[in-house]
Amino acid sequence: MNWVSFPVLTYFHAFNLPVPLLATTDAESSSLVLAGVLLSLVVIYLASKLGGELCARIDLPPVLGELLAGVVVGVSALHLLIFPEAGEDGSHSLIMTLLQATANLSPDALTSVFHSQSEVISVLSELGVIILLFEIGLESDLKELLRVGIQATVVAVVGVVVPFALGTAGLMLIFGIPSVPAIFAGAALTATSIGITAKVLAEIQRLSSREGQIIIGAAVMDDILGIIVLAVVASLARDGKVEVGNVVYLIISSAVFLIGAIWIGRLLTPFFVTLVDGMKTRGQLLLSALIIAFVLSYVAAVIQLEAILGAFAAGLILAETEKQRELQKQVIPIADMLTPIFFVVVGARTDIGVLNPFVPENREGLIMASFLIMVAIFGKLVTGLSVFGQPGINRLAIGVGMIPRGEVGLVFASVGSASGVLTQSLEAAIIVMVILTTFLAPPLLRVVFNQGNGVVEPVEAPDPTE
Amino acid sequence: MNWVSFPVLTYFHAFNLPVPLLATTDAESSSLVLAGVLLSLVVIYLASKLGGELCARIDLPPVLGELLAGVVVGVSALHLLIFPEAGEDGSHSLIMTLLQATANLSPDALTSVFHSQSEVISVLSELGVIILLFEIGLESDLKELLRVGIQATVVAVVGVVVPFALGTAGLMLIFGIPSVPAIFAGAALTATSIGITAKVLAEIQRLSSREGQIIIGAAVMDDILGIIVLAVVASLARDGKVEVGNVVYLIISSAVFLIGAIWIGRLLTPFFVTLVDGMKTRGQLLLSALIIAFVLSYVAAVIQLEAILGAFAAGLILAETEKQRELQKQVIPIADMLTPIFFVVVGARTDIGVLNPFVPENREGLIMASFLIMVAIFGKLVTGLSVFGQPGINRLAIGVGMIPRGEVGLVFASVGSASGVLTQSLEAAIIVMVILTTFLAPPLLRVVFNQGNGVVEPVEAPDPTE
Repeated sequence: MNWVSFPVLTYFHAFNLPVPLLATTDAESSSLVLAGVLLSLVVIYLASKLGGELCARIDLPPVLGELLAGVVVGVSALHLLIFPEAGEDGSHSLIMTLLQATANLSPDALTSVFHSQSEVISVLSELGVIILLFEIGLESDLKELLRVGIQATVVAVVGVVVPFALGTAGLMLIFGIPSVPAIFAGAALTATSIGITAKVLAEIQRLSSREGQIIIGAAVMDDILGIIVLAVVASLARDGKVEVGNVVYLIISSAVFLIGAIWIGRLLTPFFVTLVDGMKTRGQLLLSALIIAFVLSYVAAVIQLEAILGAFAAGLILAETEKQRELQKQVIPIADMLTPIFFVVVGARTDIGVLNPFVPENREGLIMASFLIMVAIFGKLVTGLSVFGQPGINRLAIGVGMIPRGEVGLVFASVGSASGVLTQSLEAAIIVMVILTTFLAPPLLRVVFNQGNGVVEPVEAPDPTE
Repeated sequence: MNWVSFPVLTYFHAFNLPVPLLATTDAESSSLVLAGVLLSLVVIYLASKLGGELCARIDLPPVLGELLAGVVVGVSALHLLIFPEAGEDGSHSLIMTLLQATANLSPDALTSVFHSQSEVISVLSELGVIILLFEIGLESDLKELLRVGIQATVVAVVGVVVPFALGTAGLMLIFGIPSVPAIFAGAALTATSIGITAKVLAEIQRLSSREGQIIIGAAVMDDILGIIVLAVVASLARDGKVEVGNVVYLIISSAVFLIGAIWIGRLLTPFFVTLVDGMKTRGQLLLSALIIAFVLSYVAAVIQLEAILGAFAAGLILAETEKQRELQKQVIPIADMLTPIFFVVVGARTDIGVLNPFVPENREGLIMASFLIMVAIFGKLVTGLSVFGQPGINRLAIGVGMIPRGEVGLVFASVGSASGVLTQSLEAAIIVMVILTTFLAPPLLRVVFNQGNGVVEPVEAPDPTE
């Protein structure tokens, strides 16, 4: 329908029109990119539903199924969904092979179509996690978060300090690793994947429990601490010293951003509600809310925080308005459409080849990995013990909730790998630790919340008319 | 959160890590692309709501406001949203300038970030029109469409033959244009924009009226006829003769596709309902439906039809199931999020510079344009007269509903321009005709349906609990 879309492709293909080269290439790749994106989305949705349903039936969290199904369709196995930054080229992508077979994709255009299609899927997956955190923010209670704020901060700090100290010391003393790579690996142990934990909590409907709110608050803090830790170790890796200025900048900017966004947001919400009530066109509430979410995501991103923190802040702000319930109902289908892209893509990008013990090069890494995994689990479990002033709280659940490293852990591995300080086996050990903690945490989290009863209720907003 | 995302960017930027060039570039552009996409979406949503609300207040259809707001933010004015295929480079994009000012976008990375960001927004806009046609299909009634099928076909055929004959003859006789370019311009007059008409019908809640269903049926037919007409004139433009084989292929493939998709779809829907009812994870209905919509869109695209025809067929099939109402409720927020991208992008891509009568080169085109506009309106208005066996039907409304050429008309102009048969003034005349018919039809359509009462009701599914 779009004028650089299928019809143009169709006729250029069908009739070999003598058109300027640029026009053909643009029109041709643009339409093939759409075809590739449609096919990738079909693969992602099939994988996410197959994986999710299988896991739900054997009493595991659906999000684990989405991650595992992502591994199956991704770089580790089927090669349906692969990405150029893993060093893969488009000729190994089964989707590109399908496009060649069905849509006249020429070998010349393959690389550019593959890159564009991967770019679009990457952005969709990042929009997916942005919408997920927006939804989590909407379902959170700012007052409750502030009430548990100090506990959450303690949990986050303990969950950074303990695994970092144990991991770094252990690698240096037991494995004889030099200090800089040991510090880098120790830093990777500090991460917490807010996305995975929040998704599991939502699945078992414990997001708004006190434990859930402490975990979410601590995971948000941990995201900020992780950015600061990564800044420190990255500058250590580069020239052996820490750039204090940057660390101070990150601490101040994240504090100013979170406090500022929430404070200004709360001042402006009455205006937001009046504005939305005065609007007459369809989608007024949703689009106004998305404008706020995307503006805060953009600001968080450009001040060197993460886009998802902005989306979470936007959700928190809007959760305080009288529109919260209506907005939540409208965000659910959007999250259903976009967040599976994120989880399947995380799985698809994970190369589980490093887990194969029959490959001799993997063995050293696997031994170090066993040590890192123990530290990773122990170092986060103790965070539960640090919670004070909350009698009767499920300390084990809080500790388990902080375990998954997820995509945040992989950021550490990829920065370490790019900076050249990690040996291949240590990098593999970090990746194995990230995979195991990520894939173990969801089932563990359900067990400690006593949710092992086999049936996962859909968490759609209850609708009294149905 | 993604490991080629902001954190990596942040540290590569902040600390100038000595990483391999490829890794930096990939990570850097990937995160800047997300920032650019977030900013573009904010611009699109602000434009769509400002334009839509303004139009709603002065009693014009909101979709016209979205198109006009797109013109304002696009290549004709603010340059916030521009696309590389118009020959623009990234340095003219205000969004890129903003990224340079706020997100450390380097001049080296500008071109690749601009191209990727435009690619993502283009794909999102095409997903927007796919979701729109899926929603229109869901709101349509297959039995009613089949009942008015013959009338719709007659309307479509008359709406192709009359403007084509009048336009081609007039250009040759009055303006002395040679036959091939005259035929091309005549062909551009045959288009109907299903997206714009359907959106206006939905806005005034006349989609399910008999007139609405005839218009939708005729617009779908017209889309297929348009593909065939474009195939014929494109091969004429290339070597002066018509490739009968391709025309036959297009006729057969579109018939087989539409009939086959609907027939197989109807056989399989009981299985679909059972499957969805048996699923336990969140989003099961929506994702299963999107899989069908995207598979059919992909098939329609690769057999050289249009993706939107597949999405429309998927909507029609699922409209027949007991899940129709539930699915429709879930698709509405997704359409609210994605379809404004399509309309704003259509506006943003339209260069209204050709409408300026103070530029001497435009004048010849404007005179021809006046003729083409008269033919364009008259040639579609008469289609209403061709409806038979429907006493009391609003013939004027049907004719007006077929008027907007929209993005389909621009496909003709761009193929004609690329094939080199059109003079600059004739191409400008076609574009002016497309713009005027597109922007005039929405208000006219409301007038002829007697909907000029100033208030546009939101068309969300009625919810008895609210």
